[in-house]
Amino acid sequence: MYRTHTCGELRISHTGQQVTLAGWIQTVRKFGSISFVDLRDRYGITQLLFGEELNAMLAEQPLGREFVVQAKGMVTERSDKNLRLPTGEIEIKILSFSVLNRSATPPFTIQDDTDGGDDLRMKYRYLDLRRNAVKKNLELRYAVNRAARNYLHGQGFMDIETPFLIKSTPEGARDFVVPSRMNAGQFYALPQSPQTFKQLLMVSGYDRYYQVVKCFRDEDLRADRQPEFTQIDCEMAFVEQEDILNMFESMIKYIFKEVKGIDYAEPVKRMTWEDAMWEYGIDKPDIRFEMKIANLKKPSYVFLNKDDNATVINDAGFKVFDEAETVVAIAVTGCAEYTRKQTDELTEWVKRPQIGMKGLVYIKCHADGSFKSSVDKFYNEEKLKAIAAATGAKQGDLVLILAGPEERTRKAVSELRLELAERLGFRKKEEFRLLWVLDFPLFEYAEEENLAGRWVARHHPFTAPKPDHIDAMINNNPLIENTVEYLSHPYANIKANAYDMVLNGNEIGGGSIRIFQRELQEKMFSALGMSEEESLNKFGFLLGAFEYGAPPHGGIAFGFDRLCAILGGSESIRDFIAFPKNNSGRDMMLDAPGSIDEKQLNELQIKLNLK
Amino acid sequence: MYRTHTCGELRISHTGQQVTLAGWIQTVRKFGSISFVDLRDRYGITQLLFGEELNAMLAEQPLGREFVVQAKGMVTERSDKNLRLPTGEIEIKILSFSVLNRSATPPFTIQDDTDGGDDLRMKYRYLDLRRNAVKKNLELRYAVNRAARNYLHGQGFMDIETPFLIKSTPEGARDFVVPSRMNAGQFYALPQSPQTFKQLLMVSGYDRYYQVVKCFRDEDLRADRQPEFTQIDCEMAFVEQEDILNMFESMIKYIFKEVKGIDYAEPVKRMTWEDAMWEYGIDKPDIRFEMKIANLKKPSYVFLNKDDNATVINDAGFKVFDEAETVVAIAVTGCAEYTRKQTDELTEWVKRPQIGMKGLVYIKCHADGSFKSSVDKFYNEEKLKAIAAATGAKQGDLVLILAGPEERTRKAVSELRLELAERLGFRKKEEFRLLWVLDFPLFEYAEEENLAGRWVARHHPFTAPKPDHIDAMINNNPLIENTVEYLSHPYANIKANAYDMVLNGNEIGGGSIRIFQRELQEKMFSALGMSEEESLNKFGFLLGAFEYGAPPHGGIAFGFDRLCAILGGSESIRDFIAFPKNNSGRDMMLDAPGSIDEKQLNELQIKLNLK
Repeated sequence: MYRTHTCGELRISHTGQQVTLAGWIQTVRKFGSISFVDLRDRYGITQLLFGEELNAMLAEQPLGREFVVQAKGMVTERSDKNLRLPTGEIEIKILSFSVLNRSATPPFTIQDDTDGGDDLRMKYRYLDLRRNAVKKNLELRYAVNRAARNYLHGQGFMDIETPFLIKSTPEGARDFVVPSRMNAGQFYALPQSPQTFKQLLMVSGYDRYYQVVKCFRDEDLRADRQPEFTQIDCEMAFVEQEDILNMFESMIKYIFKEVKGIDYAEPVKRMTWEDAMWEYGIDKPDIRFEMKIANLKKPSYVFLNKDDNATVINDAGFKVFDEAETVVAIAVTGCAEYTRKQTDELTEWVKRPQIGMKGLVYIKCHADGSFKSSVDKFYNEEKLKAIAAATGAKQGDLVLILAGPEERTRKAVSELRLELAERLGFRKKEEFRLLWVLDFPLFEYAEEENLAGRWVARHHPFTAPKPDHIDAMINNNPLIENTVEYLSHPYANIKANAYDMVLNGNEIGGGSIRIFQRELQEKMFSALGMSEEESLNKFGFLLGAFEYGAPPHGGIAFGFDRLCAILGGSESIRDFIAFPKNNSGRDMMLDAPGSIDEKQLNELQIKLNLK
Repeated sequence: MYRTHTCGELRISHTGQQVTLAGWIQTVRKFGSISFVDLRDRYGITQLLFGEELNAMLAEQPLGREFVVQAKGMVTERSDKNLRLPTGEIEIKILSFSVLNRSATPPFTIQDDTDGGDDLRMKYRYLDLRRNAVKKNLELRYAVNRAARNYLHGQGFMDIETPFLIKSTPEGARDFVVPSRMNAGQFYALPQSPQTFKQLLMVSGYDRYYQVVKCFRDEDLRADRQPEFTQIDCEMAFVEQEDILNMFESMIKYIFKEVKGIDYAEPVKRMTWEDAMWEYGIDKPDIRFEMKIANLKKPSYVFLNKDDNATVINDAGFKVFDEAETVVAIAVTGCAEYTRKQTDELTEWVKRPQIGMKGLVYIKCHADGSFKSSVDKFYNEEKLKAIAAATGAKQGDLVLILAGPEERTRKAVSELRLELAERLGFRKKEEFRLLWVLDFPLFEYAEEENLAGRWVARHHPFTAPKPDHIDAMINNNPLIENTVEYLSHPYANIKANAYDMVLNGNEIGGGSIRIFQRELQEKMFSALGMSEEESLNKFGFLLGAFEYGAPPHGGIAFGFDRLCAILGGSESIRDFIAFPKNNSGRDMMLDAPGSIDEKQLNELQIKLNLK
C-alpha cells in the first residue's frame, strides 16, 4: 500500500502521528524558504508543509500540477486553520517524498470552474473526471444505483441478467446490429430494453425482477440523448397497476431519503394523461408551480369530457380566435407591467419555428383593476375581465393567449409556460415534485412517412389496454380512413394500463401492465399493421410463452441517467455518465467509432456500401 | 395484488386464516369426490384441497399442468403431514378459484429430473427456467452478485459504468463490431473487458472501482464458452500486488460465507506459476487432492531452478525415456491391483488425439512390497523401487509415467491426473480449495499462424513486469530467431506482476499490476510487434492519459459465470445463465441471430459479402 491514510481523512486528533499519503499535486505555494503543497485524492485535499531542506529540493525539481506524489510526514496542527476544509485544522510536515509519476501541463485546469471547453474536456475525459464537480455526479450516480438495489432487494426482487446479443425486431426505434461471424449473413441486435426478457421471466415464475442495465437505440441524437443509456428495469407478476404505483413510489422516496436526505412524505400526486394535456399541454407537467392552462376553445373531437370556455372569447368579431381550432391561455404571475419591448420579445419567442405560433395575444391585468390588451379593438374592458377571470389571473398578472391548430397550440402554450416559469425562477433545482401520469392512450398516430395512416403503440406493443377498453380494441377496425381527423377514430380513445413517473417536468420512469393472453397480443400486433407471419417471426417466442401459463404482470423502467441528472440539479445526462458520447455518437476520447480491418470485414462476410 | 401470501409462506400458525394464493398447477390428484392440487410459485408449493362442490367443477373444466390459478381458501391443518415440504403441515380448503390463464401441455415436465433434452429446454427456456434446479442456480447467482457488491461497497469501491460501444482494437481475441449509421463506414466494438476504462478511472483518481459487467468475445465457442459473459471487474490505485491479493482473497471468503455458509478460515495458498507447472503440469491446479507430478526428466531450457530425477530412469537402455525430452509420473493411490484391461484402457486414454501421448508406462507397487511394471525388461525390482520412491508412491499405489515433448507431456500428465482423480472421487463438488497462482510469464509465444514468431502478452499488454525484470525487457531484442527453442529467449523468463485465483482447478479470476509509465507501455507495445503508429491509433488515449499523472494501480476480474457454476457444484456455466447461447452462438429461443431488412443494411451502408 502506498499510503497509510487518504487525503480526506486526517483531523486534529491525528496530530503527532507519522503518516504516508499519496495523491495528485493541486497547488504549490512558495513562501520564502518553505512551501505549502495541496495534495489531492478522491477523498479530499491535505496540506503538505515542505520545510527548508525539502524546499531546496523542490527548487531543483519542481512539483508540477497533477504530479503523482507519495509523501511521508508528521501530522501537525496548523497555525492558520482553514475551516472550509475537513482537513483544514492540520497539515503534514513532510519528512520525505517521492514522485511516483510526472505530469505534463493539463490542457485545462482541474477545478470546479475549469477553463476547458466542452470538446477539450471530452477528449481528455480522464482529466475532466478528476474535477470535483464531475466526481460528485458519479458519486451521486453510484448512491442512486446502490439505493435502488437495496430497496428492490429488500422487496424480494432478483437481479437477473438478460442477454445483449438478441434478435432485431425493428419497431419504433432503430436497433444497433452486430454481424455474426459464426452465422454469416445474420445479425444480432443490441437490446433497446430487456422488455420481452423480463416478461418471459414473469412467465417463468420469477415474480420480482430487476436489473440496472445498458440499453441501446440507434437514433439521431437530439440534445441530451445517448446511443447507450442505462435503465433501472423492473417487472412484477400477480400485480395490478395500483401495486406497481405503490411499490415504485416507495422506491423513489427511498432514493430521495438515502441520496438526498429528503423525506418525501406526502403521497405522489396522480393525474390522468387527459388532465395533464388539458391543464398543462404536456404529458409530463412540471408541477413545482401552477400557471395552469385556461382552455378558452377546443375542437369537438378531443377531450370529449371537458368543457372549454368559449363564451368569453366568442362573438367579438376577432377572426384569429374565431378561425382557430384551439385557444389557450396562461396567467403569468406579477407581469402586468411588462413593457412593449418585453411583450414583443415574447411574441417573437412564440413565432420561432420550434414553437410555430403566428402571434401572441396579451391582457395586462393592472394592479388598479384596469385591463389593457393587444386586442382592445375586439374586447372591451368587461370582456377582458371575463377572459382574465377564466384564466384565473389576479390583479398584477399578465395573461398570454395562443390560438391555432389543436396539437401545435397546446404544445406551444406548454413551452411558453415552462419558459416563463424558468425566467421567473419558479423551477427551483432543489425542489422536487413527483407526479404519476396515468391512463395514456394505447395508440398513437404514426406521423413518420413510412408508417403514415397507421397506429403505433404509444408505449410499446406489450402494453395492456384498460380492461373496459378491450372490447373497443377488438370490435373496431384499426384502419384509419380519415387521416386528418384521426383523433375521431375509436382507437384514439382506447386508454392503456400505463403510467409514467414525472419529476420536475421530466419523465423519469414509465411502464405498464402487460398483455398476457396470446389472443390479445395477436390482436395488438395486427392493429399495429403486422402480418401474422411477421409477428410470429419477430415475437413467436413471446406468443409461444403466453401459451404455457403466463401470469398477469406489469413493470416499469426508470431512465437512470436522467434520474441522476435531475437529482443532481442538472438537465444534462452527459455530466452524469463517466464516458459519454457526443451528439454524433462519437467517443471523442477513444476516437470511436473507427474503421476496421479488411480482414475483420471478410471474416464477417460483409463489405462497405458507402453512398 | 392477486394474492395475500406466496406458496412458500403458510405454516401451521396460519391455521384458520383466509388467504388468497396465485401460482401454477404442479399436480392434480383426485381421490373420489375430492381433489388435491399442488400450487407452485417462486417460493414453494402449497397443497390445495378441493371439496365435493368445487371438485365437481374441476370435473367439468379440468385444471391442466401449468395452468395459472388464483384460489381463495382457509388454512387448515393437514391430517397427513408432509414434513419434507416447509408448507407440509397445512393445506388450503378452497372456497373459490379462478383460472387466470390456461396452459398447453408443456413439451417437457417441469421437474428436477425433466424428460426434456437440451435443445428442447433451450428452445423453451422460459419453461426450463421454471424448474427448481435452474431457479436455484439463478438464485445462487444473485446471491453471489449481491455478496460481491456488498463486500466491495464496504471497502469503498464505486460502481462506475463503462461504455459498451467502444473502439475495435483487435488484440488476441476477436471483437464483435457494430456498424455506425451516423458515422458511415465506421464501426464500434463491444468490449472484451473494460480494461482500459478502469485504468483511465485510476488515472482519474477513482481509486477503487468495480462493476459487474457484460463482456463480449467473438471466438469459436469451445465447450462451455459464451459469446457474452459477465465479469466482476475491479481496479485499485496506490496498491501493490500484496494489497490486491489480500483484498480479493477476503472478497471470495466473504462470498463463501454469505452464499454457502462456509468459513474459509485458512489463508489462501499461494504458488508460483513455475511451481504449479512443475508440480501439477497446469497453471490452475486442483489442490483438493495431492497426486503431484514427479519430474523424472526435463529439458535444460525450462525450469532453470529445478532439478529433475533423471538418475532413476537413465542408463537402463530404455529408448522411450532416453529419447524423450520430458518424463513425468504420478502415483495413483490404491490402484496397484488394476487389471491388464484397466491399464490398457488408460493407455488408450492417453493415446487419444486430445492427449496425444504415444503410450503409458506403469509400475504397480504391490501391497506385499513387490513391483510389477510394463517396462520390466529395462528396469529391475530395485530400479522400479527407486522410480516409485521418486514419485512418492506407497505400497498399493499405481505409478503412471508419460514421456514425450515437454509441453505436450506436461499437459498430458496434468489431464491424466485430473481424470484419475475424477474416477477415484477425489474431486468433491462440495469441497472448495482456493489457490493464488503468481509470477506468470509476461510473454507467451504466439502459436497462431498469423502471429507466428512473435510474442503475445500472456495476460494482456497492460500487465507490468516484475520490477527486477524490467531491465531484461528493455535490454533484449524481442525478436525470436530460433522459433523451435523460443523458450530459451530471455523474454520467456520475464515474469509478470500477475496473479490468478484458482478454485478447484478452475481459473475464477485473474489480474495484474499494470504498467503506468508511458515509456514502459510503449516498449510493451513494440515488443508485441506493434508499430508506433498502430499503438497510437489503438491506444493513444491510454498513452496520453499516462502523461498526466497516472498513479500506480492494478486490478483483477472474476469470471462471474464460472464462479457461480463452481459454487453451485457444476462445471457448466450455461446452467447459471438465464438466457444462454448454444455452441454456435445461437439463442435457440429467440432464433437469433437472424437476417435483417435491406433497409437496415442500406441505412448502415454495408452489404453482405457471402462466400
